[in-house]
Amino acid sequence: MAVSKNVEQITSMDADFAQWYTDVVTRAELIDYSGVKGFFVLRPYGYAIWENIQAELDRRFKETGHENVSMPLLIPESLLQKEKDHVEGFAPECAWVTLGGSEELEERLCIRPTSETLFCDHWARTVRSWRDLPRLYNQWCSVLRWEKSTRPFLRHREFLWQEGHTLHATAEEAIEETERMLDVYADVYENVLAMPVLKGLKTDKEKFAGAERTYTIECMMHDKKALQSCTSHYFGDGFARAFDITFTDKDNTLKYPFQTSWGFSTRSIGGIIMTHGDDNGLVLPPYIAPVQVIVVPVASHKPGVLDRARELCNELRRAGLRAKLDETDNSPGWKFAEHEMRGVPVRIELGPRDIEAGKCVAVRRIDGEKTDVALETAPALIREILDLSHNIMFARAKARLDENTRTAVTMGEVKKIISENGGFVKTVWCGDEACEIKMKEDAGVTSRCIPFGDERAGDVCPVCGKPASKTVVWGVAY
Amino acid sequence: MAVSKNVEQITSMDADFAQWYTDVVTRAELIDYSGVKGFFVLRPYGYAIWENIQAELDRRFKETGHENVSMPLLIPESLLQKEKDHVEGFAPECAWVTLGGSEELEERLCIRPTSETLFCDHWARTVRSWRDLPRLYNQWCSVLRWEKSTRPFLRHREFLWQEGHTLHATAEEAIEETERMLDVYADVYENVLAMPVLKGLKTDKEKFAGAERTYTIECMMHDKKALQSCTSHYFGDGFARAFDITFTDKDNTLKYPFQTSWGFSTRSIGGIIMTHGDDNGLVLPPYIAPVQVIVVPVASHKPGVLDRARELCNELRRAGLRAKLDETDNSPGWKFAEHEMRGVPVRIELGPRDIEAGKCVAVRRIDGEKTDVALETAPALIREILDLSHNIMFARAKARLDENTRTAVTMGEVKKIISENGGFVKTVWCGDEACEIKMKEDAGVTSRCIPFGDERAGDVCPVCGKPASKTVVWGVAY
Repeated sequence: MAVSKNVEQITSMDADFAQWYTDVVTRAELIDYSGVKGFFVLRPYGYAIWENIQAELDRRFKETGHENVSMPLLIPESLLQKEKDHVEGFAPECAWVTLGGSEELEERLCIRPTSETLFCDHWARTVRSWRDLPRLYNQWCSVLRWEKSTRPFLRHREFLWQEGHTLHATAEEAIEETERMLDVYADVYENVLAMPVLKGLKTDKEKFAGAERTYTIECMMHDKKALQSCTSHYFGDGFARAFDITFTDKDNTLKYPFQTSWGFSTRSIGGIIMTHGDDNGLVLPPYIAPVQVIVVPVASHKPGVLDRARELCNELRRAGLRAKLDETDNSPGWKFAEHEMRGVPVRIELGPRDIEAGKCVAVRRIDGEKTDVALETAPALIREILDLSHNIMFARAKARLDENTRTAVTMGEVKKIISENGGFVKTVWCGDEACEIKMKEDAGVTSRCIPFGDERAGDVCPVCGKPASKTVVWGVAY
Repeated sequence: MAVSKNVEQITSMDADFAQWYTDVVTRAELIDYSGVKGFFVLRPYGYAIWENIQAELDRRFKETGHENVSMPLLIPESLLQKEKDHVEGFAPECAWVTLGGSEELEERLCIRPTSETLFCDHWARTVRSWRDLPRLYNQWCSVLRWEKSTRPFLRHREFLWQEGHTLHATAEEAIEETERMLDVYADVYENVLAMPVLKGLKTDKEKFAGAERTYTIECMMHDKKALQSCTSHYFGDGFARAFDITFTDKDNTLKYPFQTSWGFSTRSIGGIIMTHGDDNGLVLPPYIAPVQVIVVPVASHKPGVLDRARELCNELRRAGLRAKLDETDNSPGWKFAEHEMRGVPVRIELGPRDIEAGKCVAVRRIDGEKTDVALETAPALIREILDLSHNIMFARAKARLDENTRTAVTMGEVKKIISENGGFVKTVWCGDEACEIKMKEDAGVTSRCIPFGDERAGDVCPVCGKPASKTVVWGVAY
């Protein structure tokens, strides 16, 4: 059986995880390294994954009352500087426009690294009364951060994302929004991308520049490293004060409103790859796979085979599945390997004998399991196989997360777990940033989050030995 | 009856068309002037119009085999310079990034004014064989052009658009594609936006920088001026040669492929406003209106009214209509004026007596005509009113285009038509650019296009008197 050249070129995960990742990303044609350092081309297959994720998120944003808008690409330096913590966090990685047409600009303009300042500027002009609140906005766009080292999907100088920005009359309402959107993200990660999540609060050290609180979703990759997968921020009224956004409340007094922002990026695609992929390549979550079912005719030169395959493909499409027929002149074996490498959740094989028997063979990407499927009921059964694939993928990833999240009481235990097993380590923490820094120096891990509603992992901080009540999950992160 | 403040502030069209336009754009909350000169915020209502247009276009692109991708935002100067005509056209209006983080860049980077060079760069790396062709790509993004003067939707320094880029094995196929996409655009303009189109070829003078042929769609606005509404370009193999894109054809020889690009932008929203709007404000084409039906309860404090209005709104939604209930505490009169100003195609009034009679009153935005509609059959009837509104809007605009497109044989006739009536003037033209320039100097009009399949408007060029066979449509353009 001829094997696709693409498949042969994928390094095994165990041999070199980083190389495996790069191989999958390029061989599955998700990404092309562009001529501009740190910038990537999202090719059709990679972009189609993003489009499907976008649709899932956008529907949920609209169901929760959010409206899409478009803000300018460029931020005047004076605007970026209005909120001090924010500018400190972002100025070092800004790209600056200094020339427009042939004229030297009087004030240089930064390509947005994030758009809090632009939303604030707009709101300062347009919000007057409690009747104008809440503002529940979202923007789909790309942002720029001049990173030193980059990797496909995980760290780009330019990346695609959505950034939600909302403005509320009260702090309570804003905090509720921050948490609501984290739950929307968790819903998409778990029920769409089959990625179990760890939700929690970031420590002050790891907070977003300018935020009072940053909520995060952390996922565990195949190599047991953490991927910060999206974040949701509560700003209090700090930005409102810095940008002089005020509103007249129902009681006729002038107040500062409270603000949030939350973002989800193409980094999630890196997470999908490193959570579900295997040595044969990509394994795509069924609900966002650009092609959910690939129909491969076998002995397609035999009369009737191609016609029946085409008919089957159309039936699947009419049933709402993203099905495709591979009519190329490659051999069936080549096609099997190719679509496997591209992570298509279900392959259907259909040959003359299958047609005679009124069936086709459905092969699951996740484990290669073959099922005879009656042609008559194919759409419903394929849908079941997709649902089941999702469930198995989630369960596998959940088992990995659970097995590799361990509790430690002493620094010795932390170091032992990290060096022997890796994964996440849970400890209590005194709350002192110095201990957080020392944890990184001694055990090589950073705080991933203060998880929600977790039982206490001990009584004293493993670093300083002082009484501690906060539980922190530590890990090595991308 | 209380009238909305917003409505009072709209200047009448006849008094000052430009001011009327600005009033509509801002009072209907489509746009906010941002703090950065020439950059605009698309507010929720304006962006929702764009999202609906996007959905209509994107579906058609996919049905014709196109795939979406994402290219970098920035173009290295050396890349931009590879195609000489192209760089000459765009370099004067580029915004340049010269600083990344804290480092001065070795080569300055231009924010994309259009992405031909980036697509070429990608294709030069990834296209090898006839099997890789055609490439049918599209990108949704924003682009930057450092314009001197700007106007909402019509001319921004940054604007949202889609840019299709395709690569083909033969010139014939590429030309077919260029024309196919022009037809897709025409379909959307006429059958979705209710805007009749004039299709044709641009003269060499008005061509896109680097194109062999530029096809255009020109629409006539309320003030009889032309709006170049979108374009489709055929490049021959010029870009392929400049970027060294080659492929091995079936006959095993190395060839240069042929290329197209085509773009449709938020400028179309300016076109919608100036085609359909009136002195009461916006008039939105029903198929892209963010709110197609606004339900206004009358005497809503009376028992049962609000409940029945809510029920009706939900029924309309279930039937697939974009319906909204206005539950604010404003007076019905205020609401009528407000939604009229915002261009909502159908208003439904529902009061206690209507409910008793088992009906509601539907009011068409286009002419205020009122129809009693049985509550039982409301969704189907409202849909008919929307369809009819579309047809009437198209017919009105078509009548305006036809009535104001006149034929002239001499320069005297051209000048008389333009000064007395305005609109479009059709003449023959010798093909000499000098005559095109003189036409502008003498009559103040530019060539809009060489229309398709038109009968000849005369025998000699009205400017130079030489024999002429091409027909050109002239006009004053935005």
